[in-house]
Amino acid sequence: MSDRPDTPLLDQVNTPADLKRFNDAQLRQIADELRQETISAVSETGGHLGAGLGVVELTVAIHSVFDTPKDKLIWDVSHQCYPHKILTGRRDRIRTLRQQDGLSGFTKRSESPFDPFGAAHSSTSISAALGFAVARDLGGVIDTGLGDAIAVIGDGSMSAGMAFEAMNNAGHLGKRLFVVLNDNDMSIAPPVGALSNYLNRLYTVEPLQDIKQAAKGAVSLLPEPFREGAKRAKEMLKGMTIGGTLFEELGFTYVGPVDGHDMGQLLQVMRTLKARATGPVLIHVQTKKGKGYAPAEAAIDKGHATAKFDVLTGKQHKTPSNAPSYTSVFSKALLAEAAVDDKITAVTAAMPDGTGLSLFAERYPSRCFDVAIAEQHGVTFAAGLAAGGMKPFCAMYSTFLQRGYDQVVHDVAIQRLPVRFAIDRAGLVGADGATHAGSFDTAFLANLPGIVVMAAADEAELMHMVATAAAHDEGPIAFRYPRGEGEGVDLPERGTPLEIGKGRMIQEGARVAILSFGTRLSEVMKACDALAAKGITPTVADARFAKPLDEDLIRDLVANHEALITIEEGAVGGFGSHVAQFLAEEGLFDNGLKYRSMVLPDIFIDQASPKAMYDVAGLNASDIEAKVLSVLGVARLDEKRA
Amino acid sequence: MSDRPDTPLLDQVNTPADLKRFNDAQLRQIADELRQETISAVSETGGHLGAGLGVVELTVAIHSVFDTPKDKLIWDVSHQCYPHKILTGRRDRIRTLRQQDGLSGFTKRSESPFDPFGAAHSSTSISAALGFAVARDLGGVIDTGLGDAIAVIGDGSMSAGMAFEAMNNAGHLGKRLFVVLNDNDMSIAPPVGALSNYLNRLYTVEPLQDIKQAAKGAVSLLPEPFREGAKRAKEMLKGMTIGGTLFEELGFTYVGPVDGHDMGQLLQVMRTLKARATGPVLIHVQTKKGKGYAPAEAAIDKGHATAKFDVLTGKQHKTPSNAPSYTSVFSKALLAEAAVDDKITAVTAAMPDGTGLSLFAERYPSRCFDVAIAEQHGVTFAAGLAAGGMKPFCAMYSTFLQRGYDQVVHDVAIQRLPVRFAIDRAGLVGADGATHAGSFDTAFLANLPGIVVMAAADEAELMHMVATAAAHDEGPIAFRYPRGEGEGVDLPERGTPLEIGKGRMIQEGARVAILSFGTRLSEVMKACDALAAKGITPTVADARFAKPLDEDLIRDLVANHEALITIEEGAVGGFGSHVAQFLAEEGLFDNGLKYRSMVLPDIFIDQASPKAMYDVAGLNASDIEAKVLSVLGVARLDEKRA
Repeated sequence: MSDRPDTPLLDQVNTPADLKRFNDAQLRQIADELRQETISAVSETGGHLGAGLGVVELTVAIHSVFDTPKDKLIWDVSHQCYPHKILTGRRDRIRTLRQQDGLSGFTKRSESPFDPFGAAHSSTSISAALGFAVARDLGGVIDTGLGDAIAVIGDGSMSAGMAFEAMNNAGHLGKRLFVVLNDNDMSIAPPVGALSNYLNRLYTVEPLQDIKQAAKGAVSLLPEPFREGAKRAKEMLKGMTIGGTLFEELGFTYVGPVDGHDMGQLLQVMRTLKARATGPVLIHVQTKKGKGYAPAEAAIDKGHATAKFDVLTGKQHKTPSNAPSYTSVFSKALLAEAAVDDKITAVTAAMPDGTGLSLFAERYPSRCFDVAIAEQHGVTFAAGLAAGGMKPFCAMYSTFLQRGYDQVVHDVAIQRLPVRFAIDRAGLVGADGATHAGSFDTAFLANLPGIVVMAAADEAELMHMVATAAAHDEGPIAFRYPRGEGEGVDLPERGTPLEIGKGRMIQEGARVAILSFGTRLSEVMKACDALAAKGITPTVADARFAKPLDEDLIRDLVANHEALITIEEGAVGGFGSHVAQFLAEEGLFDNGLKYRSMVLPDIFIDQASPKAMYDVAGLNASDIEAKVLSVLGVARLDEKRA
Repeated sequence: MSDRPDTPLLDQVNTPADLKRFNDAQLRQIADELRQETISAVSETGGHLGAGLGVVELTVAIHSVFDTPKDKLIWDVSHQCYPHKILTGRRDRIRTLRQQDGLSGFTKRSESPFDPFGAAHSSTSISAALGFAVARDLGGVIDTGLGDAIAVIGDGSMSAGMAFEAMNNAGHLGKRLFVVLNDNDMSIAPPVGALSNYLNRLYTVEPLQDIKQAAKGAVSLLPEPFREGAKRAKEMLKGMTIGGTLFEELGFTYVGPVDGHDMGQLLQVMRTLKARATGPVLIHVQTKKGKGYAPAEAAIDKGHATAKFDVLTGKQHKTPSNAPSYTSVFSKALLAEAAVDDKITAVTAAMPDGTGLSLFAERYPSRCFDVAIAEQHGVTFAAGLAAGGMKPFCAMYSTFLQRGYDQVVHDVAIQRLPVRFAIDRAGLVGADGATHAGSFDTAFLANLPGIVVMAAADEAELMHMVATAAAHDEGPIAFRYPRGEGEGVDLPERGTPLEIGKGRMIQEGARVAILSFGTRLSEVMKACDALAAKGITPTVADARFAKPLDEDLIRDLVANHEALITIEEGAVGGFGSHVAQFLAEEGLFDNGLKYRSMVLPDIFIDQASPKAMYDVAGLNASDIEAKVLSVLGVARLDEKRA
């Protein structure tokens, strides 16, 4: 294409081994070219831009100094992995990022031996790297060989307890291991918490003690004298000696802060550490998210995630919305409740924008809590708020709520505390793929005694469920809703609380009843349209609740139909399983009931458009239609033709 | 009783408010009496002794200085809460600890307003306390009122990421909050990890900088001059100034180390802090687990958990075992596999004894990893080991595996890494009650694509499943087994790998088939004995696998019986739900199948004897018999009589 950047040196790099042929000045140029190539690629595909731009120099430095894939380079979260993918034999497919059958937006073991450990959720990299380091020392055998282990983790991810657990264990074991703290003072939102303040202080604090005395531990790891001047060396020494106390206390040698956009400095540090390190080392690298692309640097989110865009102007090509997103409807609904009840509070784990809580934080700053990437703490903190008489809404993506599961069981459910779980991104999520799918929440929540579990069929229902949750003080309550736009239905100013455990009839029909839980309802209705042409009119009901079940509704449906089909956007063990358990215990199978349960299939579904993912899942209108026809023993016309 | 201790002052304490009437010397005596009463009570009931003995003085000091229950005192894990229960109006029931209808062995909201937040899993207390502190400042309204929030947390619990997350958030919010670090260098096992080393260093390190200069922040919180001499004050000052860097960096004021058995020192510190603290304070208290009772102090586990015992000698009255415990069989089986395969490694999260891995650690110290209380890290570390070519067994209790759930999904299952999950304490657990029940693992694991999920019907089966897991390199595999003794069956020297997804026939019968998953099989056989007397011979099969299901076996059972009953020791969503999904999709309900699924009921079951808990759960032989009779439409004789 005409607007692709000129990349003469990068064109000579097919794998990281090729980098060894270049001198430092050339590596600097390769980094510049890599940055332009990354911008160009993401302008075509959309995706995570800012994180990658911030680590271009770091990516080149690590790959040129270390010996990947024998050395294991693990990118935490891996939003920042696009430059890494370009350098590791995937440049020819980089413009298929996040598309069906294209490259994943994250590192992925099945995609490349240069991705030794996939990621997408935060703060896993140190644990995984430690596993590789230990396996190496125990004589583990794998195709690529086992060399050094290097985790690159952002300052936001470092706030998660899991990273602390891994540091604690790594410091104890004392194995050679590299943790690169990529400190850009920015994860998806600006990081919060005491650790973040601590990291900021490392850049500003004055030495309190004699440098020579305190440098004892770190000085043996000092890089060779810097060509670029004594000033920089002095600054780094300063950081080494007084800055890293927290990490030193955990058993790591601390090196930094290092300027993550200064290739010379990065290469020196990496080479020295590779040659000399014996135990765990934390390399504190300061970078700028979005570095080198003005529109990203200027953006509030530093170009975190972007649609396709025009490289010259930075203008994004966003598809206009037909309806408000579920997230924005949740946001609006919560504000409506909070306006009339000052006990309503909100908890997010570093996702104020993603969950729609940023508006709440603006309007009610003292009642909104961003606890950092800390779902375990977030859930129990919400439980504490509830025990203290507040009405906390704990807003998390389905997939991230998995991080706080034990806390939901132990601190919320067993104690019957009225925490409200707003579960966004429930179901398939499109371009983020399998790691972000919200497939399991109904199954892992609905069997907890005393909890209420709802799913919204459309955005007006979501408003009612927010109101229901606000009004429900008897115990925990959860409501799930998907990523993306709503159905475009009319919205009330404020929701109306639903009767707990009562579904609603959508359409009266005959022979077959479809009981839907959540947003597949619109596909059910489309299927009904197609079935009408064949003279079949299913009864359709919206269950609203997976727990408690609307038992009367189910009994009625069974009594008046030969077949019952449940449908939900979740794995086995959820809504359909609870219905089946009820049917079994009531003896409703005994005399014959054509029962089917449409759920997510038993596979992890790779990224694609939502429509394509639902096709794979078999949860689109045509699948529902086929299920109805098959359960009634009617062959489909198009199947007969085939 | 004649051997009850003489407790003249303690007898005058019905609630903590009564403590306000006593002077310091009397409080010291009350602590002594409380220690004797605790020993006496636990000698009758069994339970957690060492932890409580270590915090007797701390318990008296906090309750006498603060105003519980308005001030919220939250005991982390709460093994150490027995003295607290004695002081807070529950002395009359303290000898019912851990018994059916008696006091819980843990703090419990429903038991007393002095238990503002229940616990049993570790590291939740700071999050909960922060919730109360925030609720207080936001005007939360609850019956007891909202005053100060005090979390008491052990050094072992502090290693969990969740505690770090809470510290990070609390340091950021800056609210007045007290965290008492109860440092006894001992949780259940000696704590491991860099943090633990750090805490040990706090007692030994020499000052590196000028005390006056560095004490700036802490000095305003210094207790009044100590009556008991300048030496102690100097020691505390030393700790204050140089010891607490790690906590200071997180935004806490650090006070300590304080001698946790010196009532004078404790009272001074608590009074000063109560009067002056404005933000979050960490009070580092050094205690001895088992303090003041020689047999506990001398024990390796410091009297962590004990059977009933003789107070004079400390000799425990243990019931002799009829069969080896499942835990010990797992331990033996793993050793047998490890002897022939040096890639077998093991991971425990601070439970080497509880999981039976201590023998493995002894025999293969370099292949066994105690990662501290850090299930999130533990699971992903195991995933890293697997990616590095090792064969890790990740041994955790079912209830604690909940802590690492997202890591099982994201790092293990999605990547199909061959981590072996050995899930101990699956099902009901007796005296530890609802918080320790392993009810949900089958449901939250069996719907993960690519995983194998097994349950052992007896201890020989467990050995085969360990061998199966050792041999299974294609992806993750999990096997669950219960707390307590096995069935007493003969054990092989080493297990034999099972065919993946194949169950086994136990007994051929007619009309009704019972498909059992796990150890309820023995109750099924008892039920069959009773049914035989009524002329009914059910077919019985052991499913062995919840995933993949033995579909041929299920089809055969359905084809040849009018009724199918599944049974498992788990909540809805697990084995029975997967069977029901299969039956539905295969159309096996269509022509009538009397299907029932026996699962744990939809309640959290309080502590009792295992037999009593299974009665409540409805999973004993008589329940199975009744289910068979009812599904066949045969009334039970004893029901007719009633």
